[in-house]
Amino acid sequence: MSFHSMWAELLPIGRSSATGGYRRFAWTEADADCRAWFAQQARSRGLAHETDRNGNQWAWLGDPADGDAVVTGSHLDSVPDGGAFDGPLGVVSAFAALDELRARGARFTRPLGIVNFGDEEGARFGLACVGSRLTAGALTVEQAHRLTDGDGITLPQAMEVAGHDPAAIGPDPERLARIGAFVELHVEQGRALDLSGDRIGIASAIWPHGRWRFDFRGEANHAGTTRLADRHDPMLGYAETVLAARREAERAGAVATFGKIAVEPNGVNAIPSLVRGWLDSRAPRQESLDAVVDGVEKAARAHAEAHGVALDVERESFTPVVEFDHALRDELARILGHDTEPALRVPVLGTGAGHDAGILSGRIPTAMLFVRNPTGVSHSPAEFAAEDDCVAGVTALADVLEGLACP
Amino acid sequence: MSFHSMWAELLPIGRSSATGGYRRFAWTEADADCRAWFAQQARSRGLAHETDRNGNQWAWLGDPADGDAVVTGSHLDSVPDGGAFDGPLGVVSAFAALDELRARGARFTRPLGIVNFGDEEGARFGLACVGSRLTAGALTVEQAHRLTDGDGITLPQAMEVAGHDPAAIGPDPERLARIGAFVELHVEQGRALDLSGDRIGIASAIWPHGRWRFDFRGEANHAGTTRLADRHDPMLGYAETVLAARREAERAGAVATFGKIAVEPNGVNAIPSLVRGWLDSRAPRQESLDAVVDGVEKAARAHAEAHGVALDVERESFTPVVEFDHALRDELARILGHDTEPALRVPVLGTGAGHDAGILSGRIPTAMLFVRNPTGVSHSPAEFAAEDDCVAGVTALADVLEGLACP
Repeated sequence: MSFHSMWAELLPIGRSSATGGYRRFAWTEADADCRAWFAQQARSRGLAHETDRNGNQWAWLGDPADGDAVVTGSHLDSVPDGGAFDGPLGVVSAFAALDELRARGARFTRPLGIVNFGDEEGARFGLACVGSRLTAGALTVEQAHRLTDGDGITLPQAMEVAGHDPAAIGPDPERLARIGAFVELHVEQGRALDLSGDRIGIASAIWPHGRWRFDFRGEANHAGTTRLADRHDPMLGYAETVLAARREAERAGAVATFGKIAVEPNGVNAIPSLVRGWLDSRAPRQESLDAVVDGVEKAARAHAEAHGVALDVERESFTPVVEFDHALRDELARILGHDTEPALRVPVLGTGAGHDAGILSGRIPTAMLFVRNPTGVSHSPAEFAAEDDCVAGVTALADVLEGLACP
Repeated sequence: MSFHSMWAELLPIGRSSATGGYRRFAWTEADADCRAWFAQQARSRGLAHETDRNGNQWAWLGDPADGDAVVTGSHLDSVPDGGAFDGPLGVVSAFAALDELRARGARFTRPLGIVNFGDEEGARFGLACVGSRLTAGALTVEQAHRLTDGDGITLPQAMEVAGHDPAAIGPDPERLARIGAFVELHVEQGRALDLSGDRIGIASAIWPHGRWRFDFRGEANHAGTTRLADRHDPMLGYAETVLAARREAERAGAVATFGKIAVEPNGVNAIPSLVRGWLDSRAPRQESLDAVVDGVEKAARAHAEAHGVALDVERESFTPVVEFDHALRDELARILGHDTEPALRVPVLGTGAGHDAGILSGRIPTAMLFVRNPTGVSHSPAEFAAEDDCVAGVTALADVLEGLACP
């Protein structure tokens, strides 16, 4: 089955006719349809198919028990109203790369695995990369049992409803020990390749990143009758802080975003008592990220104090820089012919914490390939990659797998 | 029953133990308890009690059919987590003023009415002053039938559940024709009296005011991977506009507030596609209000254009200045002894559109008395007026009623 046909088969699954975006959430019907598609792709190629204890799907060529396996793949679930490429491109490209290698007559000396990690986006239970985290021991069984969706359904309950026994979830070091290299292909979620004019890139790191909650507490009051001088309006401090975040990010060569807000009482004619904003910030280096967050907090505090508004800043999550395995990265660059000046051809792309490759990189040698995204848009129905570039991605992945597994 | 005892009886009704604020919403159990209290106050004073077709309660001394009645009162319902004074102070003071006049041996030559207007705050059905609007014909029966609460219950359904027949709601010109003057006493919702050092004030106008919806439409994208230069982030335009509103209001001697916001998709790691903010603005003069709204819109538009964000501004509601009847206002000033320089003693207070007195002022001679609010806080559990000032309010209202109805 060609890349094109596989893509066409996946396209309708979990797509909202209202928005054109995808709603493939973990352990739902759309997720089950994606899983059935994956199992069918494995079977049609004569690969051994299994779902592991944590709900990740694997298709094997050769016996993984032999060890030092080369694994590729990504995920099939989506964010709410996400695009078609984030995740599925890596899985479809994996099967297509295997087809290309077979057409080339490649002979594998290492087991080859294709993986679909479960619940990568965390759209339903609020935590990203649940499948790879559980496998890597980066999420305890107790923590996993406490995950609930918007309807109060727990992760184990959702697994059970979907026909997956939740009794055996947990760390799976034996499985990881058999893997010698994991290479995840993913659509780029920025415009670095578009700007450099390359179809394909290699990730060398995931930027350090985190989220910080800013609580501005003022005084609820009547919007029509309270003099400006008597106000303690937390919306003003929030607004100043949003603009400060942009300034600080520009200065530091970082990114900073206030994308989520909660206001109380959130009434048209009420000065708010509380404005809660979340800062998401990421930077190539830890020092830059620190400079952004310190600068934003300082600006917020100065404004809050001047207006009699209380400010509480809490770091809700933080992930330090993830450096992908240098030897594997250099090997990929060599295979792809970028051996002269890999640093020039391989931009350091901020890919977010959500990648399973980031989770696994602490346990096994891991690398990522990116496929050009001409608009940079992601997590949106407008997410796009040209078919030519996708095909170039398949060829690059095939080259990498051949170089690693068919020496 | 003394002012103090009446006040103590009302205090527990509809009070949230969690917030200390009131939740006396139209046609709920708390509302029914307030209405029972009102009926009991009427009966205990030998007044004729009736609930009119639109759900407003009336207590009569003398026969309103004689015409040229003097009416006082306010409302007993509340905003969500409102204070104890906004509304109830006017009703309790009305009964207390009647008691004081009887103690003075006053003889009434005009019928005296005490009123509790239904659903003044609009907390449940989203429209303020439903009772007085229906009576004045400022809300059609068709419009009233379309009002629904958060659970999808329509106003007529809610009336029926509460035992009020909704079949006869609608304009009630005969009732209004019998009223010669309406005087509403209300806690001040700002600090004008506190600043001028007066216990009591007379309203001369309600400021022109309105609400405008600002829709900033940008491009949803990944907060971690989208370069600052590639963003069309509508939150930045919103933030600039919030600060512009403050600046413009300061310049014009007006007030302007962004208290309500809606963001899509409102995710921590997502640049928003839409930020919708509501501007509430009010000013002593129409020209000042126009200057504020024009200035804010201009600033918003300049920023939106510079950042590739679409802006749509819609005026959702607008009420021109309400000038209370000049003859009645001057009469009140004369009675209260402020006849030398009434303009100095009677600040023009922005009281918002919510007052039933504002609705009725187009139909019958209407005036308002304000009682000092030392913090200016209103629509909040922290709303407060000193008992001394409340008692002074009762005396002032008794003086006014005596002057009007016992010449």
